[in-house]
Parts: sequence; C-alpha cells; structure tokens
Amino acid sequence: MDSIQQSFSVRFTYPVHFTEYLFDQANPLLLSFFEQQRTEGFQKKALFILDEGVTQHHPNLPAQIAAYFKTQSFVQLIPDLITVPGGEQAKNDPALIGRLIDAIDNYGIDRHSYVVAVGGGSVLDLVGYVAAISHRGIRHVRIPTTVLSQNDSGVGVKNGVNYQGKKNFLGTFAPPVAVFNDFQFLTTLDDRDWRAGISEAIKVALVKDPAFFERMEADANALAHRDLEAMKYLVHRCAELHMQHIAGGDPFEMGSSRPLDFGHWSAHKLEYLTDFEVRHGEAVAIGMALDCLYANRIGWLSDNETDRILNLMRTLGFSLYHPALDTDNSEGVLRGLTEFREHLGGRLTILLLKTIGRGVEVHDIDAELVRQSIAFLRETETQPV
Amino acid sequence: MDSIQQSFSVRFTYPVHFTEYLFDQANPLLLSFFEQQRTEGFQKKALFILDEGVTQHHPNLPAQIAAYFKTQSFVQLIPDLITVPGGEQAKNDPALIGRLIDAIDNYGIDRHSYVVAVGGGSVLDLVGYVAAISHRGIRHVRIPTTVLSQNDSGVGVKNGVNYQGKKNFLGTFAPPVAVFNDFQFLTTLDDRDWRAGISEAIKVALVKDPAFFERMEADANALAHRDLEAMKYLVHRCAELHMQHIAGGDPFEMGSSRPLDFGHWSAHKLEYLTDFEVRHGEAVAIGMALDCLYANRIGWLSDNETDRILNLMRTLGFSLYHPALDTDNSEGVLRGLTEFREHLGGRLTILLLKTIGRGVEVHDIDAELVRQSIAFLRETETQPV
Ligand SMILES: NC(=O)c1ccc[n+]([C@@H]2O[C@H](COP(=O)([O-])OP(=O)(O)OC[C@H]3O[C@@H](n4cnc5c(N)ncnc54)[C@H](O)[C@@H]3O)[C@@H](O)[C@H]2O)c1
Ligand SMILES: NC(=O)c1ccc[n+]([C@@H]2O[C@H](COP(=O)([O-])OP(=O)(O)OC[C@H]3O[C@@H](n4cnc5c(N)ncnc54)[C@H](O)[C@@H]3O)[C@@H](O)[C@H]2O)c1
Ligand SMILES: [Zn+2]
Ligand SMILES: [Zn+2]
Repeated sequence: MDSIQQSFSVRFTYPVHFTEYLFDQANPLLLSFFEQQRTEGFQKKALFILDEGVTQHHPNLPAQIAAYFKTQSFVQLIPDLITVPGGEQAKNDPALIGRLIDAIDNYGIDRHSYVVAVGGGSVLDLVGYVAAISHRGIRHVRIPTTVLSQNDSGVGVKNGVNYQGKKNFLGTFAPPVAVFNDFQFLTTLDDRDWRAGISEAIKVALVKDPAFFERMEADANALAHRDLEAMKYLVHRCAELHMQHIAGGDPFEMGSSRPLDFGHWSAHKLEYLTDFEVRHGEAVAIGMALDCLYANRIGWLSDNETDRILNLMRTLGFSLYHPALDTDNSEGVLRGLTEFREHLGGRLTILLLKTIGRGVEVHDIDAELVRQSIAFLRETETQPV
Repeated sequence: MDSIQQSFSVRFTYPVHFTEYLFDQANPLLLSFFEQQRTEGFQKKALFILDEGVTQHHPNLPAQIAAYFKTQSFVQLIPDLITVPGGEQAKNDPALIGRLIDAIDNYGIDRHSYVVAVGGGSVLDLVGYVAAISHRGIRHVRIPTTVLSQNDSGVGVKNGVNYQGKKNFLGTFAPPVAVFNDFQFLTTLDDRDWRAGISEAIKVALVKDPAFFERMEADANALAHRDLEAMKYLVHRCAELHMQHIAGGDPFEMGSSRPLDFGHWSAHKLEYLTDFEVRHGEAVAIGMALDCLYANRIGWLSDNETDRILNLMRTLGFSLYHPALDTDNSEGVLRGLTEFREHLGGRLTILLLKTIGRGVEVHDIDAELVRQSIAFLRETETQPV
C-alpha cells in the first residue's frame, strides 16, 4: 500500500552569557532572562540544584540566590535549594535521579517552569538528564562552575548519567534554554580541575583554529599561574568554537563524523584503566600527545608542530605519561581502539592532525606505531604526580 | 560581559507505511527499509520487543519474524525476541525499563542499530522511552498493532512511562526512524480496543476535517461491525491529519496551544477516577460529548451538529455516560479542569467547537453548565457495560 513521509524541523535557540558575580544584586543578567520569558497568566517556578563542591567553597551561595530572587515576581524561587554531591559520583547514583524527579514532582515544576543547575559538568549532566526526561522535557538553565563545563559540556546539547558502571549509558540530546558562565566560580577550582578543562580548548584549537592555539602558547605561563583574564579569553573562545561546531554540523550526532573526539579514543580507555583517577581532561591531554606523536610518525604532523603541542601541554602542567598506558595485556590502551570502533557502530574513524588547525580522518591505526608513541612518552616525560 | 546566541535546527524525517502481512516473506517493505539504511562498514542489529497481547493472538509471530530476516544480511536480527506484558502495565513497572536497558547493553545495540517495537500504544511508549534514553537515542522502529497506535500515538513523536502512579511523568520527544502500520493486526483486537481508537479519529475530524467526519458518519455501521476496509480509510486519514498537525505546528510542544487535546480535560480525570478501567478512547468519547453539549449550551455548536456528533459515537457503540462523572466531591470531574490548567502551566486553555471542523480556544469554563451537560448525559444515555 502507500506511505506518508513525515518531515519537520525543530529550532533550538539559547544564549550563553559570560559574566561575573551572577547572583550579585547589582547584576541584572539572570533576572532579565526570567523577565523576558514571562507569559501572561503563568506563574513560572525555578528549582535550583547546587553542586556540593561549589557550595563548600561558596557557603553563602544559597543565601545569595535567595536574596537575588527576593525582589521580583517574574519567577518564583522554590525556597528549598537542593544540594547534590559533585563530581562523577553525581552521575553514578540512581537514587539521586529519583530524588530529583521527586522534587520536580513535589514542587510542581512543569514544562513552563525551570530547573536551574549550578555546578561542574557532572552535576549539569545529571540535572540536564532529569530535566530532559521529566514531563517530556522541562526548561533547563545551566550555570557551569568549572572550566570544562563553561567552555565545553555546559554550552552544548548533551546530558547523561552512568548506568551500572557504564559511562553516559543513559542520556539525551536536550539543549538548555540559557547558560550563564560566571568566571568567578573558576577561582575556587582546585589546580587539577582548572588545568583539566584547558585540554578541550587545546583540542578544539588543534582541530579548528590555529590562531587560538598560538594565543594559548602566548598565554601558557599566565594560565599555568591561574591568571583569570587569560582564562576568560580561553573559555570564551573555546565555548564559541564548540557552539559553532554544534550549530554548523550535526547537533544531535545522527551521523558518524566526530571531529571533536580528537585525542579521545585512548583517553576514554585511560580513564577506565585508572578507575577515573585520571580526570577526563588529563586523559585527553595524554591522548592528544599520543595521536600527535603518531601523526608525526606517519609523516603528517611536522617535528616542530609536534614539539609545540607537547610543550604547550607541559607548560600548563599536564603529565603526558601515565603507567596505565603500558598495561600490556588485552585490556590495555590499544583495546580502546576496538571499543571506540564498537562505540561508533562498526567502522573506526579517528581524526589525526596534518597540521595545527587541520585534521583528516583515518580508518586504520597501526598498533606498532602506537606502542612506539607510548614508549616515547614513557621515556621523555616525568612521572605523574 | 557579552553573550553568544546559539541557534540551529534539527531535521527529523520518517516514513509511515500502510501495509498488510508485514512479515510475510513476499512483503519486501520492512527489508527494503533496512536495505536502504545500510552503511558501508557497519553491521547493524535489530532488537525486537513484542507486546504479549499481540503474541497471544499471533503465536507464530516470533517464528515469522525469524524467518523473515533469515535470508538477508542488511541487518542482523537479535535471535532473542523479547516479549513484554501489554497494556498500561507495560508503562507502570520500572523493572521492565531496566530489563530492556540491559538487553540493549548486552546485545550491543548502539546508535547505529535498531530497537523495533511491535505492539499497542503502551508498549510503543515504553520501548520508545527506553530507546530514547539509551546511548542518547537509539534508532527506533515502530510497528503499531492497535487502532489508537496506528492512527495516533505510533505515528507521532512522543513516548512515556508512568512514575509512581503518575501517568506519562517520564518521557521525551523522540521521533521514530520508521513506522509500519500492518492492518491485519487490527483483526485480533477486542471490540473495546477496536472502538476506543476511533475516538481520536473523531476528535481530529471535529477539529480539522469536516469531510472526514462525514465519511465516518457514512461508515459508522461498517466500523461498528468491524469492517476492515472502512477501518483502513479511517486509520490512514487520521494518521495523516495527525502527522500534518505535528509537522505544521510545534512538534515538540514548546508552546502552549494544544488543539488536539479537544475533549481531553475531563477524559484524563475520568480515566483516573475509574482507575483506568475506562480506556483512554472511551473516556475521550465521553469528554467530547460533554464539551459538545457545553458548546451547544453557550450557543456555539448547533443542535443539529451536536446531535450528529453524539449519534455517531452512539452508533459506534460508545457509552457516553459513566457514573464516575457524577463523583460529587472535590475529586470529581470538575477538578479535572484545575488539573488541566496546572498541567498547562497556569492558564486554562480549552478548545470548544463552533462548528464541525472548527474550534476556538476559551480560557474559562462555567462549572454549572458542565454539571448540566453531565446531567443531560446521565438522563439520555443507557448505562455503560
Ligand atoms: N555533556 C557533555 O557534552 C559533556 C562533555 C564533556 C564532559 N562531560 C562530563 O562532564 C563531567 C566532568 O565535568 P567537570 O570537569 O566539570 O568536573 P566535575 O563536574 O566532575 O567536577 C569536579 C569537581 O569540582 C567540584 N567543583 C565544581 N565547581 C567548582 C568550583 N567552582 N569550585 C570548586 N570546586 C568545584 C565538583 O564538586 C567536583 O568535586 C564528566 O562526567 C564528563 O562525562 C559532559
Ligand atoms: N505517545 C503518544 O503520543 C500517545 C498518544 C495517545 C496515547 N498514548 C498511550 O497509548 C496507550 C494506549 O495504547 P493502546 O490504546 O494502543 O492500548 P494498549 O497498548 O494499552 O493495548 C491494549 C491491549 O491490547 C493488546 N493488543 C495490542 N495489540 C493487539 C492486537 N493486535 N490484537 C490483540 N490484542 C492486542 C495489548 O496487549 C493490551 O492488552 C496509553 O498508555 C496512552 O497513554 C500515547
Ligand atoms: Zn572530551
Ligand atoms: Zn487522546
């Protein structure tokens, strides 16, 4: 018989704001957002969910938020600000998902109200997931507090939680309605989190923007010494490149090209091999070093550029070797290639650099050359802290 | 500081096929779909999930499916066809969600493989939800087996499960990659399910297509006597109108206008009041009767058209009164108005008919006129079976 072809487009828009002291009474940014979103006849609510790692360093935050919303009626703040554990554990606990869903239910947060997450990438991923599945999608505002979440995960369209030890097994593509990057949060990060988030900026520069790479080389010492001005530029430019990539390509990743997975095949494996003791950004730095050395060995990336990339990461304080790289059995890093291929659905696709700012996809990797690259890192790098 | 405005569109397309004997070796439709979807270098898999209510009436179905896929290599059938309980219970059991997620994990169903659901709206809603949240969305094929799922839920973009007794509390908007409506499945439905699915066709005709309404009037006796040819036309036209509505408007329901909720405010409440003993379509028939009588009382819908609508539903065998309508306390049907308003986020919006084929939204409902309409149904209708 016959068929009907369905076809439609859905438009998604959201602003990403860069600011400081977001909850200062003098900062109108967040309230203007809610003001603009008012609809005659609707009393919208906002349920806040806070990363405990943030509130520990900013104990006044809940009081500040309460004071900030006190003077207006555009949106009704749910007075019970919910605090959840920060870091990867936020994504590991099914009971936490239940707790947040129950809060959404109990406080009557519907599709016209908001869930606002303040925290690192882990808490944003958890809250984004809960918001996405409740009532078929509640409006979700993100206030990222780490370098990684401000320049990458928080400005994108993905969320996720872990399922029985499987990283991001459950999740959706669900854009936020607004993102507010407050740079002041970055001042309380510990050094490892400050640094780890820089990896994704290096990655996106290597794949898309050689001028940005040069700027990071120039700023490397300042960044290593936690200069906030240098970091502001980095976060802004990295976020912008990420957002352009999403908008310009395949936002919900229906195809299989993934250029922003540069350096990630071994990084994912390294995180698992070290039981996530190595942070994602730290693993990506090592993964990029490995893939640059490999590209150099097959005659793509020049000696000079390879050195520049490794040196930038060293100056920033990254360790480019980890003993787990030498796990010499079937579960070692090379196994990551197979897993990455399976993850992609059958065909291996790895982006390698021709030069800084331009990569080309390959579908085969020579295991022996990977081993040589690992050996090079083992010999040249100092031991990790 | 400054802001970056993100903006992109995501395009969704899927065919809805109308066929019979889908798994007959002579029917190439489903295999051609998988053939067209082949990608060099990927071995795609298909995990089938079957509604137990369907396999009970079609005990050969699993063997037929196995035989159907035997002769080709476009897609690898997972030999373990999973069967789940049919009906609303499919959406009530969190353990079932876990079981399906585990199957997706164990059989390595990734974003390039397929989950194929064969069943009524309940099983499709469950499987659609599980597919949508696994790996941020697995390709999902729907094979609806009830009138309601073939003409409405199965050709649309929503999924959902119940959470702690709350209907559809969890769910997403996630279009399928293809839908195959096999009319032969409808022959084994029990009379109530055959009839209940017709409500949504009446609804969409009343709101959008007077000629379709007239066609149903002409076919009413045939439909009441389970004439499959009459049903084919009805399912096809209703599916088409639904799909046009989705594509033409607001597919992911980001706004608040919901014309296809005609007759639904009291229907939802009636389902709850009867503990879902009254099926959705049966409740919608009563809800439409109520809102037509109301529209007639405020001088909108003519006496003649009101009679025609009620008579069509009577001829089809719908009971237009249920004692639960007269639950005379704060939990009665009128409470449904308040809940519907809350569900919409604060402002009540109800579509009422001016004439067959055209509705207008109102924001106030006069409780006394609703009571009069209920009284009218109590007096004129025979008791429900
Ligand atoms: N959704 C995506 O597109 C995407 C992309 C990349 C990574 N991710 C995910 O992001 C997660 C990692 O996020 P992350 O790197 O932001 O780390 P994180 O969220 O795990 O946070 C690291 C630690 O910093 C603490 N913290 C957060 N903000 C702080 C602040 N301002 N001051 C002091 N401490 C603070 C947290 O409590 C936590 O203990 C991973 O789960 C990863 O899978 C998601
Ligand atoms: N996602 C949406 O957009 C949407 C829209 C409307 C309704 N729904 C949902 O759909 C569900 C109702 O679906 P439904 O009306 O299709 O009923 P159903 O899926 O609940 O099935 C009713 C009964 O029929 C059985 N059955 C299914 N196919 C059969 C066949 N071919 N022969 C014999 N028995 C068969 C089932 O096992 C079940 O016992 C509700 O949960 C409702 O919320 C969803
Ligand atoms: Zn990364
Ligand atoms: Zn309905």
